[in-house]
Amino acid sequence: MVCRVELICIGNELLIGKTLNTNAHWLSRRLTCIGCTVRRATVVRDEIKEIADSLNEALARKPDFIITTGGLGPTFDDMTLEGVGYGIDRPLEMNKEARGMLKERYLEFKREGRLKNLTWTKYRLKMARIPQGGKPIKNPVGTAPAVLIEENKTTILILPGVPMEMEAIFESFIPLLKDKSGNASYMERGLKVKGIPESEMAAMIDVVMQKHPSVYIKSHPIGLGQESCIELHLTTVNVNREIAIEEINQAFIEISNLISERGKRTQSCCEISEA
Amino acid sequence: MVCRVELICIGNELLIGKTLNTNAHWLSRRLTCIGCTVRRATVVRDEIKEIADSLNEALARKPDFIITTGGLGPTFDDMTLEGVGYGIDRPLEMNKEARGMLKERYLEFKREGRLKNLTWTKYRLKMARIPQGGKPIKNPVGTAPAVLIEENKTTILILPGVPMEMEAIFESFIPLLKDKSGNASYMERGLKVKGIPESEMAAMIDVVMQKHPSVYIKSHPIGLGQESCIELHLTTVNVNREIAIEEINQAFIEISNLISERGKRTQSCCEISEA
Repeated sequence: MVCRVELICIGNELLIGKTLNTNAHWLSRRLTCIGCTVRRATVVRDEIKEIADSLNEALARKPDFIITTGGLGPTFDDMTLEGVGYGIDRPLEMNKEARGMLKERYLEFKREGRLKNLTWTKYRLKMARIPQGGKPIKNPVGTAPAVLIEENKTTILILPGVPMEMEAIFESFIPLLKDKSGNASYMERGLKVKGIPESEMAAMIDVVMQKHPSVYIKSHPIGLGQESCIELHLTTVNVNREIAIEEINQAFIEISNLISERGKRTQSCCEISEA
Repeated sequence: MVCRVELICIGNELLIGKTLNTNAHWLSRRLTCIGCTVRRATVVRDEIKEIADSLNEALARKPDFIITTGGLGPTFDDMTLEGVGYGIDRPLEMNKEARGMLKERYLEFKREGRLKNLTWTKYRLKMARIPQGGKPIKNPVGTAPAVLIEENKTTILILPGVPMEMEAIFESFIPLLKDKSGNASYMERGLKVKGIPESEMAAMIDVVMQKHPSVYIKSHPIGLGQESCIELHLTTVNVNREIAIEEINQAFIEISNLISERGKRTQSCCEISEA
């Protein structure tokens, strides 16, 4: 059982290089560690058609989940709900529950003296207008609610772009995601190798991966010149945790042995880890 | 004249959250600062079909440039050239020039004692097999050459994933990119605003952007609770540098005035900047 996820990150700030896309990185890590597979991440600008197109392209690939980040706020450039609604042909509707969540938050602002009075301007109401059939999810940190929409067999989870808000809401969906991944276990091990060119490591990786097809071994060159080394990163996912551990340990030992036979010292840079 | 660019970043490490995609961030910043528009960034796994599909999807949107990063090395998971060749139907061919570049690099390794003897293993030769019609570009930092391919009216620039290698090769294409963008000037200014909720800033942004449609104003919430503030980020691009400066300064003054009228202190957090 594989839980396939796609990410769509929305915001010009990501494509002008103002903001580093830590959301995609954080989500990828969390999703991987609970046994899900992130198939693709797409970053688009604050444009309704771009949001709609990228969503439909992702839906056509039939992932179990599509998670979007960004574009839920009150300003003109927050277009995610409109883009999603346009993409899957669901008109935006005023959602009473979402409006209740916003009211609660603004009353809090008022108590704190950050707001004089709560008037329902079009900017505030905008955050409560969600695509037909969508379910608002309370934002425990910020103002704009997240939204959950089912479309065919894909669950679309629409999260805010502010990292702390996004992370807090995401965590509440872990059980749903874990359930879909069959509670699969993700395991990884790493080691650093000095003095062997990557083109020589390539053959050793082939040998070990042919014997352990469930373990994926990637090599990452680090550093430059004489100081350079290769980081080997081994990963595996299995619904049976013991098999996952056994497989990755076996592959780790075998690649370490091959490297030792070549006569170079290896350095294990991280121990076996799991979520 | 707008130079439209798409990025395709290739590598499982990005989608398992092992590696933060600083390449997309760095490229987006550099491209924006020389007047180009990054329309989209797509991150795909090390799979031939994913690379081919994402390339064809990007080509269908007819950007001026597609820049790929990653997947040029000697290991089994380095599939970019094969994926690109498969996508645009150009068989891989042994390229003498690329092979010469590799030979030069390996002879250097040998002189440094990192390589015993240069045998042309399939892993090494792989990096010299490039899609028909492609032009190899010397990698001044690492081993694998980059590749340039023209497809219809799009220039595909295939860069390595190691940041230092990618950056060094990219810099040599700045003149080509600048030429395509008509040497447009990108300008930005920012200011931080405390004590005004984003839903109130929204109306002020609308007023200023209606008067200065060439200036884009985004609001970014920063921090939490009483400590929170809004960062306003103003950007503009114009082939006429003086107009770009004039426009962004006018918009900056006007939004600052609107905020002052509301009675809050603003703090200019960065001065006008350009590439």
